Amino acid sequence: MARKKSGFVLALDIGGTKLAVGVFDSSHGLLGRAVIPTHAEEGPDRVLERFIELAESLVRQLGLEHSQLSRIGVGCGGPLDAETGIIYSPPNLPGWDAFPLKKKLEEHFGVSAFIDNDANAAAMAEQLFGAGKGYKNIFYITMSTGIGSGVILDGKIYRGTNFSAGEFGHIVVARNGPRCNCGGRGCLEALASGTAIARKARREAARKPESVLSQKPFSDSGLTAKDVVAAARRGDSLAKQIFLDAAVYVGLGITTAIHLLNPEIVIIGGGLSRSGKLLFDPIRQTVEERAQEYIAGFVRIVPAKLGKDVGIYGALAVALERCPSS
Amino acid sequence: MARKKSGFVLALDIGGTKLAVGVFDSSHGLLGRAVIPTHAEEGPDRVLERFIELAESLVRQLGLEHSQLSRIGVGCGGPLDAETGIIYSPPNLPGWDAFPLKKKLEEHFGVSAFIDNDANAAAMAEQLFGAGKGYKNIFYITMSTGIGSGVILDGKIYRGTNFSAGEFGHIVVARNGPRCNCGGRGCLEALASGTAIARKARREAARKPESVLSQKPFSDSGLTAKDVVAAARRGDSLAKQIFLDAAVYVGLGITTAIHLLNPEIVIIGGGLSRSGKLLFDPIRQTVEERAQEYIAGFVRIVPAKLGKDVGIYGALAVALERCPSS
Repeated sequence: MARKKSGFVLALDIGGTKLAVGVFDSSHGLLGRAVIPTHAEEGPDRVLERFIELAESLVRQLGLEHSQLSRIGVGCGGPLDAETGIIYSPPNLPGWDAFPLKKKLEEHFGVSAFIDNDANAAAMAEQLFGAGKGYKNIFYITMSTGIGSGVILDGKIYRGTNFSAGEFGHIVVARNGPRCNCGGRGCLEALASGTAIARKARREAARKPESVLSQKPFSDSGLTAKDVVAAARRGDSLAKQIFLDAAVYVGLGITTAIHLLNPEIVIIGGGLSRSGKLLFDPIRQTVEERAQEYIAGFVRIVPAKLGKDVGIYGALAVALERCPSS
Repeated sequence: MARKKSGFVLALDIGGTKLAVGVFDSSHGLLGRAVIPTHAEEGPDRVLERFIELAESLVRQLGLEHSQLSRIGVGCGGPLDAETGIIYSPPNLPGWDAFPLKKKLEEHFGVSAFIDNDANAAAMAEQLFGAGKGYKNIFYITMSTGIGSGVILDGKIYRGTNFSAGEFGHIVVARNGPRCNCGGRGCLEALASGTAIARKARREAARKPESVLSQKPFSDSGLTAKDVVAAARRGDSLAKQIFLDAAVYVGLGITTAIHLLNPEIVIIGGGLSRSGKLLFDPIRQTVEERAQEYIAGFVRIVPAKLGKDVGIYGALAVALERCPSS
């Protein structure tokens, strides 16, 4: 592993299920990484304590010293204030109410910490290191249990008035659609997220005994969106129909987003983005059918490139964006 | 009328039904204005010729001389290229195919001409002179026969990759909605524009003889959205229901837009924005019901302030935005 003498960056990715840390050298080379479960139920102080232990242990294992640390970048579920670095009760991190993450990290490590929400972080990572290289206007979507997005306009992340731009999961795609966790109704997330796909599959499978989804190993309450994708790939018609329905809603959402934002590229990341043609074919077809040619004709819709490491690359991108020179 | 010795600005507003010209002094004071019908069927060259005659006649009447003209600002229906100033077949200007408007104006007047689409122009005008003063993140909507928008982010108009950002009329609000003129389906414009409201009113009125809408003076094919507003104000239940339905769709569209753009203020202009509570009450209620509190709670939804002169103030704003110093 090539290692530079100058400062390294600690990249922290805080998710509802896992905590990931990456150590990058000053040339953005990944020196090492580590992952542990979040155990969000322990509350922010204990979670942060374990995360810091993990990071320090990784730094030691890499033979680096504290004094070489130049800065910290963090991607975390929102809502949060990207300037003060305070976290405001993300749905996936119960108890993180006005939690001063930036301050705690800076006090502990003695260097500057920069914080942004995970979708913005991932968008910036794809711009710097992935599918968004060379593009100025990027709409990055993450599709996993939830749906989010990051908006890069004229080369810069656009955060919005109170750091809440890019809430793609909560655009309305169905006037009389199902209730969403957010309190709304007919949000994209309520119709096309991994959670929504799994919920629909469990409900429908109970009524369609001929479907693979109603048989083992799929027949229990643990049926996931990944299982639906697997069943659809094997040709199960119920699974195909459920996934197609969700993908068309994503296509409608993208049609809407590109009419407002007129981006050059739409990048789709997150676990569901690895569904390949099953996801991308109906999305592209829907956009082609619904969007105006002078907008659709200027935009590419592609999968993200960074895969599972997008979290730590995102955290690195957050650190670089705030202070690109050092 | 106060008049400055230094250069004046010619502000040209090119619409499908009327051409408006305003002459502004260097302090943005409106010295005079004039309006004529477009007669778009005459084609771009003849329309432009008549428009130039109108402008020159107004300049003469104001006692100004050609040599005092400092620049020209133009608002025009899109699509268009705001840099080259070429117009690409706007639906309301048949025959303006790759029409080099900027070049023609500059050749004729011998000063720089700056061109933008009418919704962007109006957004900038509201930012400089109207309801958007003091705001950095503005979502401006225009509701009349069609629906459009202009997006101001971090204080600057955001034009998008090929000058097509802010196509709010063509976001999708109904998966199985009616056909739209754009070739899509379920676009906001197909459900909530003046044209859509009038079309629905004509269709429904034929089946509801008890409605005011099916009686004179409303009973002919000339029934307009304005008539629906008037009938709704008089308590006609069919008119109220048709207008409410459209306003709820606009509220859903705004819910979507604010989740993507997280603006401080949504400003609604255009003819339908003068419907008052009839429009704004259901919009605000829909946004309150559908949007997340941490987004909806940070945004005001207000009517535009510039009224019918927004076109020429918009054209002035276009000229100022490109070259604010002179």
